[in-house]
Amino acid sequence: MPAAFPKFRIQIDNSYTMSIQNDLILRTARGEKTERTPVWLMRQAGRILPEYRKVRASVSGFIELCQTPELAAEVTIQPVDLLGVDAAIIFSDILVIPEAMGLPYELVEKKGPFFPNTIQTESDLKNVRTADAESDLGYVLEAIRLTKKELNGRVPLIGFAGAPWTIFSYMIEGGGSKTFSKAKKMLYTQPELSHRLLQMITDSTISYLNAQINAGADMVQVFDSWAGILSPAQYETFALSYIRQICNAINQEVPVTVFAKGAFFAREEISKLNCNTIGLDWNMDIKESRKLAGKKILQGNLDPCALYGSFDEIRKQTKTMLDAFGPDKHIANLGHGLYPDLQPDKVRCFIDTVKEYSTQMRK
Amino acid sequence: MPAAFPKFRIQIDNSYTMSIQNDLILRTARGEKTERTPVWLMRQAGRILPEYRKVRASVSGFIELCQTPELAAEVTIQPVDLLGVDAAIIFSDILVIPEAMGLPYELVEKKGPFFPNTIQTESDLKNVRTADAESDLGYVLEAIRLTKKELNGRVPLIGFAGAPWTIFSYMIEGGGSKTFSKAKKMLYTQPELSHRLLQMITDSTISYLNAQINAGADMVQVFDSWAGILSPAQYETFALSYIRQICNAINQEVPVTVFAKGAFFAREEISKLNCNTIGLDWNMDIKESRKLAGKKILQGNLDPCALYGSFDEIRKQTKTMLDAFGPDKHIANLGHGLYPDLQPDKVRCFIDTVKEYSTQMRK
Repeated sequence: MPAAFPKFRIQIDNSYTMSIQNDLILRTARGEKTERTPVWLMRQAGRILPEYRKVRASVSGFIELCQTPELAAEVTIQPVDLLGVDAAIIFSDILVIPEAMGLPYELVEKKGPFFPNTIQTESDLKNVRTADAESDLGYVLEAIRLTKKELNGRVPLIGFAGAPWTIFSYMIEGGGSKTFSKAKKMLYTQPELSHRLLQMITDSTISYLNAQINAGADMVQVFDSWAGILSPAQYETFALSYIRQICNAINQEVPVTVFAKGAFFAREEISKLNCNTIGLDWNMDIKESRKLAGKKILQGNLDPCALYGSFDEIRKQTKTMLDAFGPDKHIANLGHGLYPDLQPDKVRCFIDTVKEYSTQMRK
Repeated sequence: MPAAFPKFRIQIDNSYTMSIQNDLILRTARGEKTERTPVWLMRQAGRILPEYRKVRASVSGFIELCQTPELAAEVTIQPVDLLGVDAAIIFSDILVIPEAMGLPYELVEKKGPFFPNTIQTESDLKNVRTADAESDLGYVLEAIRLTKKELNGRVPLIGFAGAPWTIFSYMIEGGGSKTFSKAKKMLYTQPELSHRLLQMITDSTISYLNAQINAGADMVQVFDSWAGILSPAQYETFALSYIRQICNAINQEVPVTVFAKGAFFAREEISKLNCNTIGLDWNMDIKESRKLAGKKILQGNLDPCALYGSFDEIRKQTKTMLDAFGPDKHIANLGHGLYPDLQPDKVRCFIDTVKEYSTQMRK
C-alpha cells in the first residue's frame, strides 16, 4: 500500500491504475476547492428509472439483482448516463451483511425486508459468524470490479455498508419497525449480548468495506438509517463507538462518508470521527450543522419530497440549499434516498441546477 | 367566563366547581415551585394494564371503546388508581377529528389506522367539513364529564387533540407511513389546497379543545406526532402556524402543552407559542432544550424502552433525567407513549422514583 496516495489516480484490483476523468467528488471530499459542487443521489440507481425497472423485471427479485454482478453493474452505471451524476454507487443492499453472517432475508412486496430467523438470546448467536468479505460477499466485489471496468474512469464509484446499529436492529427485529422497541429492548436488557453482536457486525463491515476498496471503490459511505431512534447516550455507546472503529480500520486513502439519519444530537461527535464527509438529512439546519461539523465536508440535504414540486420550485429550493452550504466543502445530495415515484425529469432538474448554480456561485 | 381564574378551583360544565386535591401538575404548569415533580405517562390508559385489556375485550374494538363514554371514563381513571399518576388523560384517539370532519377510519390489527376515503384533490374537500365539537364529538365530551365526576377531584384531567399537520397527514395518506411522502407531496404540489384543509382541521380542533375545557378538562395537550418528518421551513409554514392559531384561540385559563415529536429544530419557535409546557422526546438533550425553551415548563423525556431495563437501571435512568431537568419547571413523563408490552411494575418503578427522588431533590 503506497504511503502517499497519488492524487486523481485510483488503484484497481492491485493490477492496474486508471485516471478518473471527473474526480470532482474525490477532490471535494479531500477538502480541495473545486470549480463546482459535485452531485449524486442516494438510491439514484433504482425504481425511478424505467431502464432500471426493465432490468429488474428480468430477474425474480431485488436480491437476485444484487447477486448478479453483470446486472448490478449495469444498473449502477445507468444514472451516470441517464442523470449525469458525478459518482456511481454500487447497486447493493445494506442487508447483505446479516445474510453473509448467517441470517438470510426476503423482501416482501410493499412490506420490506423479512428475516425468518432473528437474534433473541445467547444461543441464537451460535447461528451467526463474522463474515469474510472475499468468501461470503464475492458477488458484490465482482460487481464492483465489473462496474469499474465499464465505467472506464468516467466518474468515481462509491462503496457502502450499513452502520452496525442499523444492521443489528434488523437482526433483532426481523424487519422494519415503527419503534424498533425489540432492538432497543435488547440494548437495555442484554447489553453484553448486544455488544458481542455489534462487534461481530463491525468486524464483518470492516472486512467488507476494505474488500470493496480493494476491488475498486473510490470512496465509501456508512449508512446509519435508524440512528435517530436511539437516545443520545445509547447512540454513543451502541452506535457511534462502532462506527468509530470502522472509520479507524478502513483503508484511509479512500474518502469516508458517515450518514447517520436523524442523529442531529450527535453531529458534533460525528465530526470528530476519522472520516471526510458527514451526511445531513433535511431536518438538519445547514448553517448550524456547519458550525457543529468543524472542518468536515458536508453532504446533502434537500428533502426528497421537494422533487415532487414544479421545476421552478425545485430550482428555487436547490439554490437556497446551495447558498446555505456555500461553494466549498459540500457534496450535493438529498437528505434521504430518492422515492420510487419521483420523475426522472425532476431529478435531472435538481442535478442540473446544482451544476449550473454552483458554477455561477464561484464567479 | 371569569377574567381571573381562581387558583386550584376548576369549573365543570359551568354548573359547579370542585377542588382538585392533587393539583401538583397544574401548579407546575403555571410556573409555581412545588413540593415535588408531577408525573404522568402518555398512553398510561391502555394495553399495559390487564384491567384495561379486560374492558377492551368487552367491546368490539378500540373505536367502540372511545365512543362509549362510561367505558372511556373507566379506563381513563384506571391508571390513577393502579399506577398513582398525578393526572388522568381522557381515553380517546387523535383520529376522532378526521372522523368528525367526514372521513371515518378503521383500526386494522397489527397495521394501525386505515381510512377508506382520503383527500387527494380539490373535489375531495367537498366530502369534509369543519367539525362542531358539541354535535360531532359529544361522546368525548360526555366521557370527560363522567370522568370528572368519578375522579371526584383526585387529580386533574388532561384533554388532547392531534396537531393539524399530523391529522392532515393521515387524511392524505389514509394511514401510517414510513416517509409520509404523499402528505408531503401535497404540501409541495398543492399548497393552497393543503392550507385550506389545514385551516379546516385547525378550526375543528379549536372547537374541540374548547369544548373539552368546557366539559371539564383541566389542561390540554396538542400532539404533533409526525412533526419530525417535515423540513424546518415546511414545519413553520404548514405545522407551527396552525398550532399557533390553536394556542391563541383556546381558553387561556387552562394550561396548554405542545408536544412536537421529532421537531428538535423548532424548539426555540415552539417556546414562543402561547402555551405553558413543551413536550420533549428522548432524542432531545434536556439542558440544550432548557436553553432553547426559555421560561417554558418542560415535559418528558425518558426513552420508553428504558422501562424494559431492570428496576435498578430504571431508578438510575429516572434520577439522571430528574437531575438534568432540575427541581422546577418540569413535568415528568416519557419521551413517547408507553409500549404495550411494558410491565406495570416497571412503569410504577418510574413513577415512584420520580415521586421519591424529586422530593429529596428539594431538600
